[in-house]
Amino acid sequence: MLRILVLGSAAGGGFPQWNCNCENCRRARRSEASAVARTQSSLAVSADDEHWFLLNASPDLGQQIAQSLPLLPAREPRHSPLAGVVLTNADVDHIAGLLTLRERQPLTIYATRRVHDVLASNSVFNVLNPEVVKRQTIELEQSAALHLPDGRPAGLAVELFSVPGKVALFLENPDAGPNFGTVPEDTVGAKITDQSDGRHFFYVPGCASMPPDLARRLKGAPLVFFDGTTWTNDEMRTSGVGEKSGSRMGHMWMSGAEGSIAAFSDLGVGRRIFVHINNTNPVLLADTPERAEAEAAGWEIAEDGMDIRL
Amino acid sequence: MLRILVLGSAAGGGFPQWNCNCENCRRARRSEASAVARTQSSLAVSADDEHWFLLNASPDLGQQIAQSLPLLPAREPRHSPLAGVVLTNADVDHIAGLLTLRERQPLTIYATRRVHDVLASNSVFNVLNPEVVKRQTIELEQSAALHLPDGRPAGLAVELFSVPGKVALFLENPDAGPNFGTVPEDTVGAKITDQSDGRHFFYVPGCASMPPDLARRLKGAPLVFFDGTTWTNDEMRTSGVGEKSGSRMGHMWMSGAEGSIAAFSDLGVGRRIFVHINNTNPVLLADTPERAEAEAAGWEIAEDGMDIRL
Repeated sequence: MLRILVLGSAAGGGFPQWNCNCENCRRARRSEASAVARTQSSLAVSADDEHWFLLNASPDLGQQIAQSLPLLPAREPRHSPLAGVVLTNADVDHIAGLLTLRERQPLTIYATRRVHDVLASNSVFNVLNPEVVKRQTIELEQSAALHLPDGRPAGLAVELFSVPGKVALFLENPDAGPNFGTVPEDTVGAKITDQSDGRHFFYVPGCASMPPDLARRLKGAPLVFFDGTTWTNDEMRTSGVGEKSGSRMGHMWMSGAEGSIAAFSDLGVGRRIFVHINNTNPVLLADTPERAEAEAAGWEIAEDGMDIRL
Repeated sequence: MLRILVLGSAAGGGFPQWNCNCENCRRARRSEASAVARTQSSLAVSADDEHWFLLNASPDLGQQIAQSLPLLPAREPRHSPLAGVVLTNADVDHIAGLLTLRERQPLTIYATRRVHDVLASNSVFNVLNPEVVKRQTIELEQSAALHLPDGRPAGLAVELFSVPGKVALFLENPDAGPNFGTVPEDTVGAKITDQSDGRHFFYVPGCASMPPDLARRLKGAPLVFFDGTTWTNDEMRTSGVGEKSGSRMGHMWMSGAEGSIAAFSDLGVGRRIFVHINNTNPVLLADTPERAEAEAAGWEIAEDGMDIRL
């Protein structure tokens, strides 16, 4: 059994975003039923309904834990059902929440060497006392068992694989050419498997394109959470909120012949759910033609609090 | 005119804390009227009701902004009433919120050189694009004018002064003797003044003791927000949640002959408000004898959302 909680379904900045006053964000602030607010990108997964692993740790993690009954402490005086965190890149919207996980709680952080190097070079993450918070490097393309703080296996395996993407914004090297110094370990997808029955799903919250090897990997999967940052590549500009394109930010867009909806159309994926959705994306709103188009193509638009059993 | 919003009144970890299941935290999770939940330590201040400065940026900043009408964007498409942040130390509960203030919003971060050095040595803070987010060093004991992003004066001045304290947890040097390598610029208090009329208040969210020079400085002040971390020095231990004493964490306790309530008793301060209150502190609960004792001594216990005009 796999149980998956969507803790946060929005991209970096959340929905509404603190300094954004676009029509989408205004509607979310007015609590319109068709414009549900969303916190930043993170899932939680469990094989036993008792021990949980975060897939990315968003800046909103404190709020997300407080709103998720399965993640609240169950024993006195201190306790947490959280046993670890798997990181898919070092973007601020995926690592800042680590700073919330202090207070001497035993945990393991799983990530590629490259992402661990980012944490190691930022002393602020040492608030996670190395005596109680382990950091484990995961090699690409290797299935790694996740463990509980006491060393027992959690019944879950994670496999990380490189996907097209971009190094974290704060590490971009403008002198390193068009990819800003990005290497394969900077952005990965994760395959999470219940070791008892082989049930599995994919989590790919950041992905810049769908090369053939990634399409082959995802083909026929029972469930995929996929990067839903923008609807069109130039959405930030046309919304008047920025100049960067989706691809410049390392994200595939949803619509059109080159978009993710088309890329998935022949993959036979059982359940397709967009996560990491930017506040400019019209699919966030339940009453838009874009939402209708995505749903007609078989996609679900994630909301915080989705609770999925596989 | 000074207007002050208490964005967060709890110490690091908040109330309830994500991994704490003590009686205090359980009561807050049950939303008992006498156990009001609180986010982590931060104030916002304005001289004109239009432009605001944060005093510290807590990990809960996203949630705090969303809940504070004066801090929401007012113009399209992107805007924020926030013009800057003043930091009193580099503790995670006071700097992590900077990571929320990305998205190309012009701001200025004001802090001592020592605190700026911590930010500079952690590349993750470069998500605050240096082209739009300025970092200004404030010398101790100098009155510095705060500025709006367009360069105009904000009508506010800040004076930082060293207080007894401790270097941030993640920077402690165990080989540097009993003070872990702490220097005077590591922990400061702030005096905020409305330049038009001289009205002012003090903000001292972390302070390990009350030496005579600090007592002289605060004497007769109209309003002081002061470190309310613990009620007794050994509260973490007696609550069963940790081993560290208040003084080991760099915080004065409230009660008894050496406590902050006694230290303020002859200072003639107009309004005394405890902030940065740890989840173990019984004054968080409205029905405790400790709360009654603090209030009888003239203290207020801050709650999130307090809105004070001076």
